[in-house]
Amino acid sequence: MSDLPEHVTIREVALRDGLQIEDPIPLSAKLELLAAIAATGVREVEATAFVSPSKVPALADAPELAAHLGDYPDIEFSALVASPNGAKRAIAAGLRSVEYVVSAADAHSRANVGRSSAEATTQIADIVAIAHDSGVTVEVIIATAWDCPFDGPTPPQRVLDIVDAACEFGADRLAIADTIGTTTPGRVTALMNQVRPRIGNRPLGAHFHNTRGAGLASAYAAVAAGVTRLDSSVGGLGGCPFAPGASGNIATEDLVYLLRDSGIGVDVDLPAAISAAAVAKSVVGHDLPSALLRAGDRILN
Amino acid sequence: MSDLPEHVTIREVALRDGLQIEDPIPLSAKLELLAAIAATGVREVEATAFVSPSKVPALADAPELAAHLGDYPDIEFSALVASPNGAKRAIAAGLRSVEYVVSAADAHSRANVGRSSAEATTQIADIVAIAHDSGVTVEVIIATAWDCPFDGPTPPQRVLDIVDAACEFGADRLAIADTIGTTTPGRVTALMNQVRPRIGNRPLGAHFHNTRGAGLASAYAAVAAGVTRLDSSVGGLGGCPFAPGASGNIATEDLVYLLRDSGIGVDVDLPAAISAAAVAKSVVGHDLPSALLRAGDRILN
Repeated sequence: MSDLPEHVTIREVALRDGLQIEDPIPLSAKLELLAAIAATGVREVEATAFVSPSKVPALADAPELAAHLGDYPDIEFSALVASPNGAKRAIAAGLRSVEYVVSAADAHSRANVGRSSAEATTQIADIVAIAHDSGVTVEVIIATAWDCPFDGPTPPQRVLDIVDAACEFGADRLAIADTIGTTTPGRVTALMNQVRPRIGNRPLGAHFHNTRGAGLASAYAAVAAGVTRLDSSVGGLGGCPFAPGASGNIATEDLVYLLRDSGIGVDVDLPAAISAAAVAKSVVGHDLPSALLRAGDRILN
Repeated sequence: MSDLPEHVTIREVALRDGLQIEDPIPLSAKLELLAAIAATGVREVEATAFVSPSKVPALADAPELAAHLGDYPDIEFSALVASPNGAKRAIAAGLRSVEYVVSAADAHSRANVGRSSAEATTQIADIVAIAHDSGVTVEVIIATAWDCPFDGPTPPQRVLDIVDAACEFGADRLAIADTIGTTTPGRVTALMNQVRPRIGNRPLGAHFHNTRGAGLASAYAAVAAGVTRLDSSVGGLGGCPFAPGASGNIATEDLVYLLRDSGIGVDVDLPAAISAAAVAKSVVGHDLPSALLRAGDRILN
């Protein structure tokens, strides 16, 4: 717990990871949620994904949503892509930042994108070339970095090999993702301590799900181990398809509460994040797992 | 994160802190829950409280429940007390371990037990004398150690003064409690780093609520700062009266998952804890906030 950063960058992912397994909602509802998210002061927002509309119908309106992002010039918007073609579509739609996901586990990689982890790793070079030609930033997100729902625990060396390849191929930043919400602080510390020295000055992010209750504990452990970027979603929107009924992403407002109270600066205003969580709950039409949405801030009188 | 212990003692508190604000349930239901808890392998169980039956009707059957504890000779049972008279009643009922709670905040102390924090601190000496006369162990639990629902943030010096008094008066062990579920890892680390050097070889425990989602993160931070005893309740039973609808104690099964996966030994079997959480849900008749009760262990195939 010795080297906490003064500031952590929160990337709001409700519009992509949060919505992707929900029933599709209208573009107008997404714009309402986006406005509430923008009002939190957050500086980075994952807006959507440029992937197969048939695989992820909830995000099929990616180009239409992208057309509205210029309304928020102070926010860096990113989109997730799974292929060079997706990167081209994202850039054509105006995105200036793309995230390319590589699963460290073969079984998850094949289930998710129909190719092996090694094949997906090789494509980092193509994505970087396409993006950098247009001056677009590339973040490589390493999925199933601790566990795969099919292969079981992921050997850390698989993650480190992808980290090395991403750096060699010119990725601008990296993120390590606990895709199915199974990791815990001990394993987070161990892996981040191996990743951090390999990536030079590239910013390091992390992505956790709260499926087994350890998401915030893992996020704090990551920050203590050198991570300065965290993904979260207002309300904790974004259930895991492998654990029906379980929590999704760590909730932005819960993360803001924890970091701020622990003396770490964030760009996100807590009351505004709680308000945005209420909007998220409203647009999807069901309860969300956020703790702060129920309990509120700690100022009780 | 450098000095994690090899083992953490979990004290199961569902039967006391978990049930105290629930509608009273029959003794037979408590015994069913106790049997499920005993089957987890847990070595310490907070069984009940010897306090005013009119203030805590859910625990009015303390003597009757205590009469059954001899059925589990491998478990150290404890009971919470709030006065010398309560300690006498607990000992008369056969308890060999009592917890005496002192609120660090005056407003909470007055609301809870009708006297100031200083007056409650002075009574530690009486409780210890009564208990030690009968060879009974005394744990002093310092409540509202980080925040009070009425007074706001608790100055750490108030906690340290009670710690010093408890040691001087002969308490056998100490625990620091986040009574209303507001603290976070940064403040946990800071306070525990001040408490730990003052208490010699006395075991140090901590008690967290997950009301704002940070309970497990705080528990892990506490363990990293020298805490070797943690309270938790199966299912996360035990809502906070000051935050209606919010989560209660950290859930035993979520804590076991986190600690075990982080390489820290515990006495509690995870599948048995999940089963006990299901019993807890059944006996109180409503959903519980446990993550593992929904998502299950991480072995998915």
